Amino acid sequence: MFRKLSAEFIGTFWLVFGGCGAAVLAAGFPELGIGFVGVSMAFGLTVLTMAYALGGISGGHFNPAVSLGLALGNRFAWSELLPYWVSQLLGSFTAAGLLYLIASGIVDFQAGGFASNGYGELSPGGFSMRSALLIEIVLTAGFLIVILGSTSPKAPAGFAPIAIGLALTLIHLISIPVTNTSVNPARSTSVAFYADTAAVPQLWLFWVAPLIGAAMGALIWKLVLAPDEAIENIGGTG
Amino acid sequence: MFRKLSAEFIGTFWLVFGGCGAAVLAAGFPELGIGFVGVSMAFGLTVLTMAYALGGISGGHFNPAVSLGLALGNRFAWSELLPYWVSQLLGSFTAAGLLYLIASGIVDFQAGGFASNGYGELSPGGFSMRSALLIEIVLTAGFLIVILGSTSPKAPAGFAPIAIGLALTLIHLISIPVTNTSVNPARSTSVAFYADTAAVPQLWLFWVAPLIGAAMGALIWKLVLAPDEAIENIGGTG
Amino acid sequence: MFRKLSAEFIGTFWLVFGGCGAAVLAAGFPELGIGFVGVSMAFGLTVLTMAYALGGISGGHFNPAVSLGLALGNRFAWSELLPYWVSQLLGSFTAAGLLYLIASGIVDFQAGGFASNGYGELSPGGFSMRSALLIEIVLTAGFLIVILGSTSPKAPAGFAPIAIGLALTLIHLISIPVTNTSVNPARSTSVAFYADTAAVPQLWLFWVAPLIGAAMGALIWKLVLAPDEAIENIGGTG
Amino acid sequence: MFRKLSAEFIGTFWLVFGGCGAAVLAAGFPELGIGFVGVSMAFGLTVLTMAYALGGISGGHFNPAVSLGLALGNRFAWSELLPYWVSQLLGSFTAAGLLYLIASGIVDFQAGGFASNGYGELSPGGFSMRSALLIEIVLTAGFLIVILGSTSPKAPAGFAPIAIGLALTLIHLISIPVTNTSVNPARSTSVAFYADTAAVPQLWLFWVAPLIGAAMGALIWKLVLAPDEAIENIGGTG
Repeated sequence: MFRKLSAEFIGTFWLVFGGCGAAVLAAGFPELGIGFVGVSMAFGLTVLTMAYALGGISGGHFNPAVSLGLALGNRFAWSELLPYWVSQLLGSFTAAGLLYLIASGIVDFQAGGFASNGYGELSPGGFSMRSALLIEIVLTAGFLIVILGSTSPKAPAGFAPIAIGLALTLIHLISIPVTNTSVNPARSTSVAFYADTAAVPQLWLFWVAPLIGAAMGALIWKLVLAPDEAIENIGGTG
Repeated sequence: MFRKLSAEFIGTFWLVFGGCGAAVLAAGFPELGIGFVGVSMAFGLTVLTMAYALGGISGGHFNPAVSLGLALGNRFAWSELLPYWVSQLLGSFTAAGLLYLIASGIVDFQAGGFASNGYGELSPGGFSMRSALLIEIVLTAGFLIVILGSTSPKAPAGFAPIAIGLALTLIHLISIPVTNTSVNPARSTSVAFYADTAAVPQLWLFWVAPLIGAAMGALIWKLVLAPDEAIENIGGTG
Repeated sequence: MFRKLSAEFIGTFWLVFGGCGAAVLAAGFPELGIGFVGVSMAFGLTVLTMAYALGGISGGHFNPAVSLGLALGNRFAWSELLPYWVSQLLGSFTAAGLLYLIASGIVDFQAGGFASNGYGELSPGGFSMRSALLIEIVLTAGFLIVILGSTSPKAPAGFAPIAIGLALTLIHLISIPVTNTSVNPARSTSVAFYADTAAVPQLWLFWVAPLIGAAMGALIWKLVLAPDEAIENIGGTG
Repeated sequence: MFRKLSAEFIGTFWLVFGGCGAAVLAAGFPELGIGFVGVSMAFGLTVLTMAYALGGISGGHFNPAVSLGLALGNRFAWSELLPYWVSQLLGSFTAAGLLYLIASGIVDFQAGGFASNGYGELSPGGFSMRSALLIEIVLTAGFLIVILGSTSPKAPAGFAPIAIGLALTLIHLISIPVTNTSVNPARSTSVAFYADTAAVPQLWLFWVAPLIGAAMGALIWKLVLAPDEAIENIGGTG
């Protein structure tokens, strides 16, 4: 169990340090910056890489919404849900703190949004709360269907981390302008506390929407797409 | 059969919501926008991800032209063609409606082309109807050859969703300036009704050309490239 | 044999139509254009996709320099070299002609360089003939080492089209500014005849350098890296 | 042993020629340049491609820090560490020299930073030495965890070069603005001598930080994540 929780800590650390790090450090670099395409690639590759490295240990969730969806989909033990969430949050806060330390190593540093998520005035493109709720729910539901489907016995073995990681890239390609893209409450929570903006009061949405979406995705998989699937594979994306 | 049709509904929903969503929401974002490269990646990744997730259920067509080509190539039962087309269209319309709801959540929203396809005055780069017909036919034919080839018994197992998804990325990299890229009548149809432009009267081309191209690709595969191929694998990209 | 030559015709068609098509139609589109990154992705994905689709039929060369290198590396029968070259050239010319037809469907069309290769005044970045020769030789040699290595019995099976296709993407990421990137005489030859520039008199370099480079890469593999390799696999990238 | 060292020479040559070549030749090309996204892709693809080609021969390290980490993780014989380092450095210097020869083939050539690494005044974004140390350590540690995890018996076979190559892409997406990204002392050393800037006196950091990071990553893997792992696989990423 300690190994599993360590793996979730490290994987979520990598996701936040890599994805938010790319956003904070490299997205807006003059002329050569990576833009939203580069940030989308970075988030996806954090999951692709660590799912291959650590999926065999912890299942490679790195996301409280994913852990919830996998539990609902009978792929993960409910008794481990809370410890997983705690490890994911700890990994996220460690990454955000370290990223802050690094990012502040320039003159005239300003944290700004620090890659936090938001809606309304804090939405990158000025999208409403309703748009934010809808897109986070829909994309997290799709994410869980990709996760449950690509790790199911009907899918070719070994490819799931590619499908899952690139699904996260896809999700970012669509939704950064709306909410800066969460679909992961652990990713949203830590960086909000480092932002200069009022990101913390909006955090509720980035727990509620991903968790609802993950539950919807898991139930669609379980009830509609694979009603005959046995409880075959406690563990997830490995 | 209900599971198969649900899978086609969800997969086509994901393709339109993700691909057209990236185009509508993120392509032209000031300075950091994803441009045509990001939209091309998004379309391809919708197929890559859901083909891994749902390919084992429905074959992962998500496209009426693909279903036709697979039927012509003896990989898909003709009796299922019409139900597949209906499910794909329903998924596409659901995605377009939801995307409209989300995209309209900004002040001064204008639908514009809403990621619809077009030629002549509605071509992003002002290309003629003849250019549009030719490129949609050629690219859909190539798409079907990739699909039939990468799922044939001579290709390594499990990699087809990568080849097929990235073929769709490639197709968009080439042809967005010409027609905004269809190669998929279901993708074209729904968003045309949400566009502020006269996209609907041009829809005929985005049914005719992809279907002709898919038929050509399937026949090239069947008659020229794999004349000895038995009817081995009803199901497609799984 | 007819199937093999058809596969080489189609694969080389796809490479030129897709790669040069992305360059001609989409690279410089105002604001949203795909730039050199998108062109690099396009070239690589033409090979990745068709190598999965057709590799099992013809070996998936799509390039006279690759055919030469595979023959030198004992993976391809010398007797088939000339027919392969002819098929590759025919596919390339067919693609260039069709691309010209499509690209000319705008008002004020000008062919410009039409994605042709060049050095000196025709180098995108103004690089000398010596730079052009060197980079084409080095990159083709590396390409052949990737091809021979990733299809060798020591490499994991099935992944070669990913390694080879993405090697071509990498090669373009490096060298478009120098020569517009050839490493493939068939790709260079057809488009040179459609260019408004004096590309044809420079064609010799894009035969000489890739062929020398391919030979060097094949000999490095055969003599240094895998001297014990038996003649195990006539056929190539499949 | 000669074959192993040749493979490390060639792989490190390819990494420096390809990654630094993309940075020097193509990153800042007017309007169409590949930017940091393209450079990140290039570095990652050098490793992905040559790890598939040469991983079965030498393990595919191409990086002194990786060799150290693999030795600490019981995957590589300590007796081969020094010869590997020498081969990697030779490959790097050969690549840098050839790249200089090619890059200087334009009028008004200036070497500038020549893709060298730096901190403080030589950091692309002006980041401090502390930021540089921290990010190089953290990213190299994560890199080693991906390497050791994705090549462990618990990970699916054959995918490691994808995970490892794309991890290097990810690492560049995050950290080019801070240090121009090293995580590889061999990559840093050669190009520093060709730079017009004072890159050489800063080289110490790009040996110290990657080596410390690699050691930390290897120890985290060995002591925390896989304490039961037997010495199963001398050889690495193959």
